[in-house]
Amino acid sequence: MSTDKPPVTCDLLIEAGFVVPIVPHGVVLEDHAVAVSGSRIVALLPIAEARARYQPLRTVSRPDAVLMPGMVNAHTHNPMTLLRGVADDLPLMEWLNQHIWPVEAAVIGPEFVADGMTLAIAEMLRGGTTCANENYFFPDVQAAVYKQHGFRALVGLPVIDFPTAWARTADEYFDRAGEVHDQWRDDELIGTAFAPHAPYTVNDANFEHIRMLSDQLDIPVHLHTHETAQEISDSLKQYGQRPLARLDRLGLVNDRLIAVHMTQLTDAEIHLCAERGVNVVHCPESNLKLASGFCPACALQRAGVNLAIGTDGCASNNDLDMFSETRTAAILAKAVAQDPTALDAATTLRAATLGGAIALGMGERIGSIEAGKQADLICVDLSQLETQPIHHVLSQLVYASARHLVSDVWIAGQPKLVQRQLLDIDVEALVANARHWRERIRTLHPAT
Amino acid sequence: MSTDKPPVTCDLLIEAGFVVPIVPHGVVLEDHAVAVSGSRIVALLPIAEARARYQPLRTVSRPDAVLMPGMVNAHTHNPMTLLRGVADDLPLMEWLNQHIWPVEAAVIGPEFVADGMTLAIAEMLRGGTTCANENYFFPDVQAAVYKQHGFRALVGLPVIDFPTAWARTADEYFDRAGEVHDQWRDDELIGTAFAPHAPYTVNDANFEHIRMLSDQLDIPVHLHTHETAQEISDSLKQYGQRPLARLDRLGLVNDRLIAVHMTQLTDAEIHLCAERGVNVVHCPESNLKLASGFCPACALQRAGVNLAIGTDGCASNNDLDMFSETRTAAILAKAVAQDPTALDAATTLRAATLGGAIALGMGERIGSIEAGKQADLICVDLSQLETQPIHHVLSQLVYASARHLVSDVWIAGQPKLVQRQLLDIDVEALVANARHWRERIRTLHPAT
Repeated sequence: MSTDKPPVTCDLLIEAGFVVPIVPHGVVLEDHAVAVSGSRIVALLPIAEARARYQPLRTVSRPDAVLMPGMVNAHTHNPMTLLRGVADDLPLMEWLNQHIWPVEAAVIGPEFVADGMTLAIAEMLRGGTTCANENYFFPDVQAAVYKQHGFRALVGLPVIDFPTAWARTADEYFDRAGEVHDQWRDDELIGTAFAPHAPYTVNDANFEHIRMLSDQLDIPVHLHTHETAQEISDSLKQYGQRPLARLDRLGLVNDRLIAVHMTQLTDAEIHLCAERGVNVVHCPESNLKLASGFCPACALQRAGVNLAIGTDGCASNNDLDMFSETRTAAILAKAVAQDPTALDAATTLRAATLGGAIALGMGERIGSIEAGKQADLICVDLSQLETQPIHHVLSQLVYASARHLVSDVWIAGQPKLVQRQLLDIDVEALVANARHWRERIRTLHPAT
Repeated sequence: MSTDKPPVTCDLLIEAGFVVPIVPHGVVLEDHAVAVSGSRIVALLPIAEARARYQPLRTVSRPDAVLMPGMVNAHTHNPMTLLRGVADDLPLMEWLNQHIWPVEAAVIGPEFVADGMTLAIAEMLRGGTTCANENYFFPDVQAAVYKQHGFRALVGLPVIDFPTAWARTADEYFDRAGEVHDQWRDDELIGTAFAPHAPYTVNDANFEHIRMLSDQLDIPVHLHTHETAQEISDSLKQYGQRPLARLDRLGLVNDRLIAVHMTQLTDAEIHLCAERGVNVVHCPESNLKLASGFCPACALQRAGVNLAIGTDGCASNNDLDMFSETRTAAILAKAVAQDPTALDAATTLRAATLGGAIALGMGERIGSIEAGKQADLICVDLSQLETQPIHHVLSQLVYASARHLVSDVWIAGQPKLVQRQLLDIDVEALVANARHWRERIRTLHPAT
């Protein structure tokens, strides 16, 4: 359909063989284009119509690819990318006490955080992830590195009941949190959330303080919750309540809560989460590898809970691969629900994009291809033999494709990956630096 | 260490930054080389020593790669690669009755089998798989296509209690099985096994016939077993026995049995499998996606059962990715066993290589890098940023690498993939042919 009006200029027109806009749900559009002006999506329309209506400064044509929103990694500890595979296949306490914590104690600081973040950003971009929910120390450094690379993130402001390299006392945690929040409060790309570590490492007073401040500042609370059966039994002993009940008593069970893991849930708790608008981040590969338990992802989704997907950190997963995580979420949900219709391809892909966006409080701005939203977009090449024949595009995306098929990435309309090439990141230097850290870590903690 | 003897000629010397020989267990050798003459491995030794001792016709140097045995895909239905993603996210009986069986009825025949096999062989080679345990109709066509591509396989001779395009009566199934077996009995690359479909589709008389013939011919019996809870309860109703007990009564529970899936097992059954030398093929992604149940992979392995790994067919999985399957096996085992030490990286990698070889009756010939074994070898590039830093090679291989990092593949000493390029396969024609089948299938079965 052409129009009589004269063509409108726009910055970028991306034409694709297939477009998966996420909204409307389950739709695949053939031969469509997305017009972008500045950081925003202007229109999604058939290619022929787009060519008649727009005069773009630049056109990108990907006839063999799916154009879709960037993946939102809703739970990660990106500086730990430098600890990828530092210790595996161990009981949790041995893994923490003899490996992760001693190594962290030896290396943690702004340099480790910045270098780990940079490696992670490169990995995320090459894997089609355009937004991360970050949970680690030194959020000031994280935010600066994300901003430098034009990467969208929600940066966690840590609160934990013991001294770390980031802060020593509760007052100091809150002071530093306030500083980081103030610095980034009006940024287009970087947001902040409180990131109390877990119910078992944060006392009631600190949770109450977090609730008050998160209400005041209108920011999310990003929390590991109900990760293991041990966490539940310990909470029952210490507080006489399951963690979610305790959080409810403290006023935190609401739509600002980003509850990560959630492998231990009663039907009543699932119902409570749905009723209160709690966001659940499912990290299936971390839960499997650490033998944490099985998140009832399908039951949560069917109860109406907003479901998001996260990779967790590279010390436990061991990658930042949202394609693999999405596939694992989709297939694991079926086995856990004993129902092969659980988390179908479209539903799981929604969780990995719009579900994450909603969880991070960014549902109005990212997570789908809709006019007015930020142009956080990726192209996934389906022309290789491993994704042939293409009977169904959504099936190929979720069950057969992989992150290395991501050809192009834009964040806020800016190109970040073009035909597999990272812009503005020196990959050779990045790998050399990772190798350098490998030697440093081996020296600092010879048991590694 | 040099030697005083004059250098010996060999056909190929592969030098690698790391070698994972599988035997001895869990070992990673740095800067080692493998010398190959004809189809066989002659030696595994340090690079410096190899250069002094051998005068190779050709040297391949991969300083950033791991050299390891090729993956053995111990259960697959490769012609179904043309049905990748044809139907997903459906209840089993709807998936079979309304999609898979009608489509198969419309397309099955030598052409479909040959074209699906070729697509599968290309996918397997690009993913580091060098041997497949095949289970489908038209084993004559399968064997010819495998042979044509120099790919190693155990080809299943189907037996099922109803007529198919391959044979109509029990006599015809056995006659055709005998013909295919005779044709390939002395082949270096192609072996045969009986492939009775499943306990619920093969009667006692046919199982007894298979037992007699498999003893006589000394070939394995490749069988879907204990795949779902339904299979167990149906068998109890029909035979008054669980399938494994029934197979035991029929004399089939022995070291020739390749028992696929095994999601429903009592402790006594696990013990029986260990005692009798039954080989169990774990297909974790198929079991998850079809909601079949959880195979107790760690309990089987710890009981001493030989464990192998298979992808199952592309209509259910939806790929032939043994790297992903191995990773899923390793992480799922931990959750199922509630023990993060279950199926560690080295143990899982052994299952994907030597475990598969042993299951297929090829344990003396392939599955590890040892002098005298066939040179079925692959290189996995660990230089990319997604596998950095390299704290532990086995961890990176199992938990962070992926099939597209496979750079080179040899089968029986012959190069099949060289720096990601397939030899002797026209990829463009292959993809065009898959697209053609997609249109044909859509025409023949419009519900697709």
